[in-house]
Amino acid sequence: MFEGGEGAGKSTQARLLVEALAARGIEAVLTREPGGTPGAEAIRTLLLSTQGEGWGARAEALLFAAARADHVERLIRPALARGAWVICDRYIDSSRAYQGGGNGLSDADVLTLHRIGSEGLLPDCTILLEVDPQEAATRCALRDQGVTDRIGGRDPAYHARVGEAFAAFAAAEPERFARIPAEGSPQAVSARIMAALDRWLDHRAA
Amino acid sequence: MFEGGEGAGKSTQARLLVEALAARGIEAVLTREPGGTPGAEAIRTLLLSTQGEGWGARAEALLFAAARADHVERLIRPALARGAWVICDRYIDSSRAYQGGGNGLSDADVLTLHRIGSEGLLPDCTILLEVDPQEAATRCALRDQGVTDRIGGRDPAYHARVGEAFAAFAAAEPERFARIPAEGSPQAVSARIMAALDRWLDHRAA
Ligand SMILES: Nc1ncnc2c1ncn2[C@@H]1O[C@H](COP(=O)(O)OP(=O)(O)OP(=O)(O)O)[C@@H](O)[C@H]1O
Ligand SMILES: Nc1ncnc2c1ncn2[C@@H]1O[C@H](COP(=O)(O)OP(=O)(O)OP(=O)(O)O)[C@@H](O)[C@H]1O
Ligand SMILES: [Mg+2]
Ligand SMILES: [Mg+2]
Repeated sequence: MFEGGEGAGKSTQARLLVEALAARGIEAVLTREPGGTPGAEAIRTLLLSTQGEGWGARAEALLFAAARADHVERLIRPALARGAWVICDRYIDSSRAYQGGGNGLSDADVLTLHRIGSEGLLPDCTILLEVDPQEAATRCALRDQGVTDRIGGRDPAYHARVGEAFAAFAAAEPERFARIPAEGSPQAVSARIMAALDRWLDHRAA
Repeated sequence: MFEGGEGAGKSTQARLLVEALAARGIEAVLTREPGGTPGAEAIRTLLLSTQGEGWGARAEALLFAAARADHVERLIRPALARGAWVICDRYIDSSRAYQGGGNGLSDADVLTLHRIGSEGLLPDCTILLEVDPQEAATRCALRDQGVTDRIGGRDPAYHARVGEAFAAFAAAEPERFARIPAEGSPQAVSARIMAALDRWLDHRAA
């Protein structure tokens, strides 16, 4: 799973990883959250579109958990069951950082929603892309040319809380997280990621 | 709040109660679940429309809790704060009966979702309309002329489990529940309900 703030390069690196795994003969499914299945994409549309006052923190957290429950049941578990790798652009730690750390719900409550919704399924490895906030802002500005969604458009203090939350999760679970500096070219970052995934790669197949 | 299986007369009695309260000079807000606010009605549309395989039990429970969270925050709490009565057609006990009792989630998990989503808000009185399943089926058939939604269309064993679940909740919380036999004319049922609500009615205003 790829995690990190906006513009760190998650979507770019997720694509590059799937290509690198395919080159080694490993089936890898590329997906994203919120979304990844028809039901979860319908919830994503509800979540990201501005409508009236928008969602309160509690309703928002429940909608993310509902989308994830559908995604886990209909796409992630079946893919894992047939032996594929699942490469997901954002997952539970984004909910912990955005709905929990950034938005007023406790981390325990966000994790409880994940237990009820998805039986608490966690990835073998969560890749946290860490980049200077200024560099991330520049990357986003180049990409979006001023267009941003409801959550991405929140203020800098909110994004700072999100970044601190990710760092704290990684520090608390060093076994599950790989913290990857996301500076440099996409190819340079991808090489760091492949090195971090070394212990899951079957070198006979390389 | 009105609870009970399909065709017991909840929507009919909720309307009659609001009229009876208005006649006594009491402001009463009539609302329903899932729904009641623009956000919750959007979730209701997602929930009740058949799409592909439909929702899994976990995603469904989270979507109901999300709709309720929006409804409680945006409509129910503000109405209670200004002193109005809130008359709601279905509420948390429907989630407990349908997503819990009928659908595989534990009651504890459904109540946990309610705590996280809506701070566990419970009504002063929950009116459980109890009617013979055959009479309920006849009422629904007359009303719907063969058209039914995705949840209402489930099999009789499912509805039997739902009815047993409601009865068990009422037995466990006799203070909160008023069990009302829903046989007889709408006016006869309404008179039983007004009698059960006697202790909340200000007789000076009558
Ligand atoms: N290493 C890199 N150096 C320079 N630009 C990059 C790098 N990686 C990605 N980009 C560019 O930065 C922008 C943001 O990257 P990307 O969309 O992958 O980030 P993201 O983490 O998925 O962001 P979001 O959270 O908004 O989805 C894109 O335009 C992308 O092409
Ligand atoms: N006491 C009654 N006697 C006969 N028919 C009734 C009575 N109360 C309601 N009905 C009729 O039965 C049908 C079902 O009633 P209603 O829609 O109020 O039930 P409900 O509990 O809200 O059902 P649902 O769970 O499907 O929303 C309606 O057509 C209504 O007019
Ligand atoms: Mg992205
Ligand atoms: Mg009704």
